[in-house]
Amino acid sequence: SIDGQRLWDSLMAMAEIGPTENGGSCRLALTPEDAAGRRLLLDWCEALGCTWQVDRVGNLFIRRAGKRDDLAPVAMGSHLDTQPKGGRFDGILGVLAGLEVLRTLADRDIVTERPLVLVVWTNEEGSRFAPAMVASGTYAGAFSVESTLAREDRDGVTFGEALQACGYAGESPVGEPRLDSFFELHIEQGPVLEEEGETIGVVTGVQGMRWFDVTLAGQSAHAGPTPMRYRRDALAAAARLIDRLQAHALADESGDTKVTCGCLEIVSASRNVVPGDVKLTIDLRHVVENELDALQAYFEGLLSEVGETCGVTVTQERIWASPVVEFAPECVAAVERGAREQGLKYRRMMSGAGHDAVYVSRVAPTAMIFVPCRDGISHNEAEYATPEDCAAGTQVLCDAILERANR
Amino acid sequence: SIDGQRLWDSLMAMAEIGPTENGGSCRLALTPEDAAGRRLLLDWCEALGCTWQVDRVGNLFIRRAGKRDDLAPVAMGSHLDTQPKGGRFDGILGVLAGLEVLRTLADRDIVTERPLVLVVWTNEEGSRFAPAMVASGTYAGAFSVESTLAREDRDGVTFGEALQACGYAGESPVGEPRLDSFFELHIEQGPVLEEEGETIGVVTGVQGMRWFDVTLAGQSAHAGPTPMRYRRDALAAAARLIDRLQAHALADESGDTKVTCGCLEIVSASRNVVPGDVKLTIDLRHVVENELDALQAYFEGLLSEVGETCGVTVTQERIWASPVVEFAPECVAAVERGAREQGLKYRRMMSGAGHDAVYVSRVAPTAMIFVPCRDGISHNEAEYATPEDCAAGTQVLCDAILERANR
Ligand SMILES: NC(=O)NCCC(=O)O
Ligand SMILES: NC(=O)NCCC(=O)O
Repeated sequence: SIDGQRLWDSLMAMAEIGPTENGGSCRLALTPEDAAGRRLLLDWCEALGCTWQVDRVGNLFIRRAGKRDDLAPVAMGSHLDTQPKGGRFDGILGVLAGLEVLRTLADRDIVTERPLVLVVWTNEEGSRFAPAMVASGTYAGAFSVESTLAREDRDGVTFGEALQACGYAGESPVGEPRLDSFFELHIEQGPVLEEEGETIGVVTGVQGMRWFDVTLAGQSAHAGPTPMRYRRDALAAAARLIDRLQAHALADESGDTKVTCGCLEIVSASRNVVPGDVKLTIDLRHVVENELDALQAYFEGLLSEVGETCGVTVTQERIWASPVVEFAPECVAAVERGAREQGLKYRRMMSGAGHDAVYVSRVAPTAMIFVPCRDGISHNEAEYATPEDCAAGTQVLCDAILERANR
Repeated sequence: SIDGQRLWDSLMAMAEIGPTENGGSCRLALTPEDAAGRRLLLDWCEALGCTWQVDRVGNLFIRRAGKRDDLAPVAMGSHLDTQPKGGRFDGILGVLAGLEVLRTLADRDIVTERPLVLVVWTNEEGSRFAPAMVASGTYAGAFSVESTLAREDRDGVTFGEALQACGYAGESPVGEPRLDSFFELHIEQGPVLEEEGETIGVVTGVQGMRWFDVTLAGQSAHAGPTPMRYRRDALAAAARLIDRLQAHALADESGDTKVTCGCLEIVSASRNVVPGDVKLTIDLRHVVENELDALQAYFEGLLSEVGETCGVTVTQERIWASPVVEFAPECVAAVERGAREQGLKYRRMMSGAGHDAVYVSRVAPTAMIFVPCRDGISHNEAEYATPEDCAAGTQVLCDAILERANR
């Protein structure tokens, strides 16, 4: 069985690269900190005798030989980049759990039938280069290599330039190596496991997500002399939209409808001016694709209704859509067996967040393992998972990988 | 009678000082542009034989002698500063109408019993130094001279430093000269006169206004995995607050209840993060003081209710309150007589916006005259009032001033 203390020590050592004031980490994709994190991991893996290759979008594949090196490898991993004020676990756990699996096998001189690969996907967070999961998406063919290399950060630095600068512009073709299967351990990033007192989420898939940019154009006017009934208040319209959309989602007793307005900005805001122009973003999610269609239709109807009632011109653009993902039943079953055989309390669940596994599942049988995180908080310096839960998830990962690699 | 073309020419000449791309003006308070505008006015007034003095907060008093120079002067005026993308009329009309009155009297060699004073109040807009109407407020004793001089703009330049730099740091005590009465002509800044086909608003007072800073503190969370019922969404709470407050104001059939949320900001906004912290501003107005009390009570109740329903901690601070102002009946009557005798369509009305007249009315009998502005738009480069309406308002001002100065 894996060594929970060693896993924890490697998590805490990684957190020292790009530490933040309040105990989190800042390793934005393709920065010197990201490179230093990768280097530390490679040092550890080289010490185990692993070899590695980097593809043209910086995805890092660390290989441990199997008995049958002609067979496609069984893979595990996640990402090492963080949010600007990120935590010590989101992504990192999935990578360092993979390291712990490799170390455990090395300790016992176990050689699997199939080779194993530990993957570090580039720029999962999407904070430096939008969108999220862009390099696993490129690996899976959802984005072209050229478009990914051309993406710019806020300072106009391209993904390709940043990749060169940090030393991880690899040569191997994107899409290689082809994987037998892929397992990703991750913190849940939500409150369900903790609330329910469960240790393992056996992730059966990922809910569908759609992102919209919305603009509301009314007429700015002086707050004092403009009667309420003459107003075309873009913020009042936005408030109605958000309030109605919230009520709609809350009315779904299954809890499967999720709506979020994450950004809202008043153009030229002033305390005594009725807002004329508002921009906002909407994130719609559902675990069932045609329910997500229905949610989008409701949302679009609401936009028209609110626009008319408030005398505001409403436009929207759907800028991203990720369909509902169902993970491979054989991989999900392997995870579930692992949890059961370890005697851990678990539940089957859908992932609410996007992960690299979403795209990888398009080209290889895939599953995920969740462990609880305190108060469901992530993307936050306060993010925390207990050493026990990290170890339990890693054990389940190890068991699933072994089963799969030796089948 | 006054010369409408000459008035219009002076308005258009003033607009050439700090012109903006789209036909508006930018003369922020106590900038070189503000100084150049004052200088142009002084050139015009000196040519008429007027004298002038500047007080310690930069208020400019231009005097035309009367027959009885021992009596307190009858005053008129407004402000020359503008919003960053301001128009050609807001404030400027009241000053240049005063100039036109002085020129008309000079043309006909009319000397009034009482002396006349044309006042330019400093920093009415409040865009450079908050709050609005700060120098007329200082004149009237609402703010101390020291606190006004110490106010800082966004770059940390104090009011006092800016006053020195632009050459209008005067020596005369604030509060002098004491005025017999004060008349301010202004564009309505709202749509009522235009909609009703009326030329003159006989302003009987100014509605009360209260400004609040509100913060909503929930818990930021990942938009994907966080179930709706676990969320403590500060923006959803803000949306509910704004929507309910709007509905409350719209339900008042008298139209006298006005509520505006002009600024709203999400702290660390991100498209896939449930907003944890929101700041917003609320502007409440009513023409009746105890109705304004009731409106504030409703608003405060709503804050608690929304906070509880949404699991969000709501705090508020009232940062400014301007009570309902009733102008002096004898001054209002003089304006009304002027409008009636000129055969103009007029209505008695309350001002929705604050003006220098609000503070001046605390220390001298005061009234205001409104003329329509196109589409009710102000604080905007597109602000427009017709030459005919500007002339009509100036004629009413002239008649009221003459009646008052010769009584
Ligand atoms: N795990 C994660 O934060 N992914 C980003 C995409 C999403 O919003 O779910
Ligand atoms: N006229 C004007 O814009 N005054 C500023 C104060 C207010 O918001 O009414």
